[in-house]
Amino acid sequence: MDDKVNLAEKIALLPDTYQPGVVGYMNDYKLCVVKVDSEFVWHKHDETDDFFLVLTGRLTIQLRDPVERNVVLTPGELFVVPRGVEHRPVADDGEVQILLIEPTGTPNTGDRATAAPRVVI
Amino acid sequence: MDDKVNLAEKIALLPDTYQPGVVGYMNDYKLCVVKVDSEFVWHKHDETDDFFLVLTGRLTIQLRDPVERNVVLTPGELFVVPRGVEHRPVADDGEVQILLIEPTGTPNTGDRATAAPRVVI
Repeated sequence: MDDKVNLAEKIALLPDTYQPGVVGYMNDYKLCVVKVDSEFVWHKHDETDDFFLVLTGRLTIQLRDPVERNVVLTPGELFVVPRGVEHRPVADDGEVQILLIEPTGTPNTGDRATAAPRVVI
Repeated sequence: MDDKVNLAEKIALLPDTYQPGVVGYMNDYKLCVVKVDSEFVWHKHDETDDFFLVLTGRLTIQLRDPVERNVVLTPGELFVVPRGVEHRPVADDGEVQILLIEPTGTPNTGDRATAAPRVVI
């Protein structure tokens, strides 16, 4: 990454919801933005924690931890889903814009077969 | 980390400027908040990139990259200083609140002898 990243400007370049855009790197991690407007699939990552920072909107992260519970995030709030914990992000009140940080190569569904491709924006 | 992190609420708990507070962990990385109101020391990290996301205020990151240049960050803007690049964060327009992400054990000055201790908030 040669220069600073304005997150709002990068999000404006995203082609679609649920299409993460890579905006930079830190060591062997990717910095991604994504916009979502409905519910994602239940999934888990056995090899990594999963970082979410909400930039705009309201995101409910449903967890099976192991009892089902919800974490509700508004702008300026972050949550790290521990590795191995099943979760489903749900945008239940309009569009949500999110900063994600994940190891390079992490599939967003926890499964390479169903993962969305990342675009560099 | 058991629950979500509201960054503004955590920053309100910081005892002083230049005293980073650990608000969570992601794998072997620490998530820290810090508030600054003047200039830091020139330093570099040979072993890691250095992640800055400005939450409030304006931060100038001076770089020797190798020619001296400045990156100016406002809220919602992030920058990753590449490992090995000398830099000095400067708050030149009042208090700045920042989210930092760094490997566990990273001294904030690049030198354990002069590094500020981290508090968990």
